Amino acid sequence: MCDICVMTAVKEQMLSRRGFFTAGAAATAAVALSSGATTPAMAAGHGGVVDMTHMMDETFPTYFGEPGISYEATANFAENGFNLNVLTVMEHTGTHIDAPLHFSADGLSVDEIPVESLVCPLCVVDIAARAADDPDTQVTPDDLSAWIAANGEIPDGACVAMYSGWAAKARSDGFRNADDEGVMHFPGFHIEAAQMLLETGAGAIAVDTLSLDHGPSADFATHYAWLPANRYGIECIAGLDQMPAAGASLVVGAPKTGRGTGGPARIFGMV
Amino acid sequence: MCDICVMTAVKEQMLSRRGFFTAGAAATAAVALSSGATTPAMAAGHGGVVDMTHMMDETFPTYFGEPGISYEATANFAENGFNLNVLTVMEHTGTHIDAPLHFSADGLSVDEIPVESLVCPLCVVDIAARAADDPDTQVTPDDLSAWIAANGEIPDGACVAMYSGWAAKARSDGFRNADDEGVMHFPGFHIEAAQMLLETGAGAIAVDTLSLDHGPSADFATHYAWLPANRYGIECIAGLDQMPAAGASLVVGAPKTGRGTGGPARIFGMV
Repeated sequence: MCDICVMTAVKEQMLSRRGFFTAGAAATAAVALSSGATTPAMAAGHGGVVDMTHMMDETFPTYFGEPGISYEATANFAENGFNLNVLTVMEHTGTHIDAPLHFSADGLSVDEIPVESLVCPLCVVDIAARAADDPDTQVTPDDLSAWIAANGEIPDGACVAMYSGWAAKARSDGFRNADDEGVMHFPGFHIEAAQMLLETGAGAIAVDTLSLDHGPSADFATHYAWLPANRYGIECIAGLDQMPAAGASLVVGAPKTGRGTGGPARIFGMV
Repeated sequence: MCDICVMTAVKEQMLSRRGFFTAGAAATAAVALSSGATTPAMAAGHGGVVDMTHMMDETFPTYFGEPGISYEATANFAENGFNLNVLTVMEHTGTHIDAPLHFSADGLSVDEIPVESLVCPLCVVDIAARAADDPDTQVTPDDLSAWIAANGEIPDGACVAMYSGWAAKARSDGFRNADDEGVMHFPGFHIEAAQMLLETGAGAIAVDTLSLDHGPSADFATHYAWLPANRYGIECIAGLDQMPAAGASLVVGAPKTGRGTGGPARIFGMV
């Protein structure tokens, strides 16, 4: 398995699929290659690219519970000859990043995060079995120590991702998992794990849930520990079930919105 | 020069810059690594990543002339302990993609474009010298033939990009370059060039101007030739001045908005 040099594999895939972009083939591929689907090359153990992004529309769950995006179709093909929407988007909707500015007075806004920080090694910390029994569980320093014991030091610039299995719930009430008092129950990073990672060169943490902090958090302790140090976060990431614990890379396609505190992003997993 | 396997180079850069993500270093890097800046590794001829994205805010020029984005700050750090905006965004603002659905009744929406199509070889067609004399100039079949004679066939899945030098004008009236009648003057792809590329496996065309069609176009002929074939476009791309004619790759980070006709994207150039 080529775990780094995915560009070569992707080009080889394309060469093997001349005509891929004809209308019918592309439409079929779009269905087959929805969020997190593996490529033919990956299935053959050859390396490839995974879409680590949920489709985002007005039905996607949000932290605050209200729809995160609304659409105004200002042109349509039948009447105007083209389609165009004006979107109203809460920055922290769908698969998105938290820029340092989200929880600091003057941290980096999303446009200020350099592209080198958005292309990074991926470390996957698997707590899915525990999360299945306890939705409030958290990534702890012990989890990180176990990952390091198995895989070596956290690479500089890495994104350390919590895999809790929550992405599979993204289209159900189980994603927010709110109780009768409205308190949500989903996993996140414990502040002590964030503090441990601040001692490394890790550049980002990612969760497959709605918040870096676990659902019942009342104080956003992990957000306040992590983001003001000018490191960034990713929430609602998909596709971690298809990524190795170590050796893959992420490309985090976050639009370059001036003064942005974060925003929806297309995230690529390169294996 | 390693022109494909950029991941290795990026990791090596990170290893050589342990502590990069401390607050001061990151802030400095964010300034130094603004749109299109080269990385230290690239400067040393080692391969790296280029930000091919303009910063987008309410001052960025748009095709229709109105601001493409507006901000509502619904929380601020001083009063709420965190910053958060709700953005109203015309889909075709800043460095963005045109999904096939933009100019077709039922083409692929942006969320339906598979990630394999968003990681692609880059072919740069340089018409900057001609555009300096004639802002209405267009990429022609002759330009494509000259590129092929110099560099070989267009790779399957490639993004063929027009480099006209227009990105340098992005913060001036010269970007729209409207005359007294409001007709814009900037370069684009001639429909015959688009038709020639439809005979290849190219997956996308890109321009460093506001439209795939040149400014004075009254009929969007190139949009109508290209997008309904379920190939996509990129407008307002930056950084082409730093890319080779052949051998580099793009990663097109377009958020996965359901029913989206396109949208602002973070675009990475891998050399």
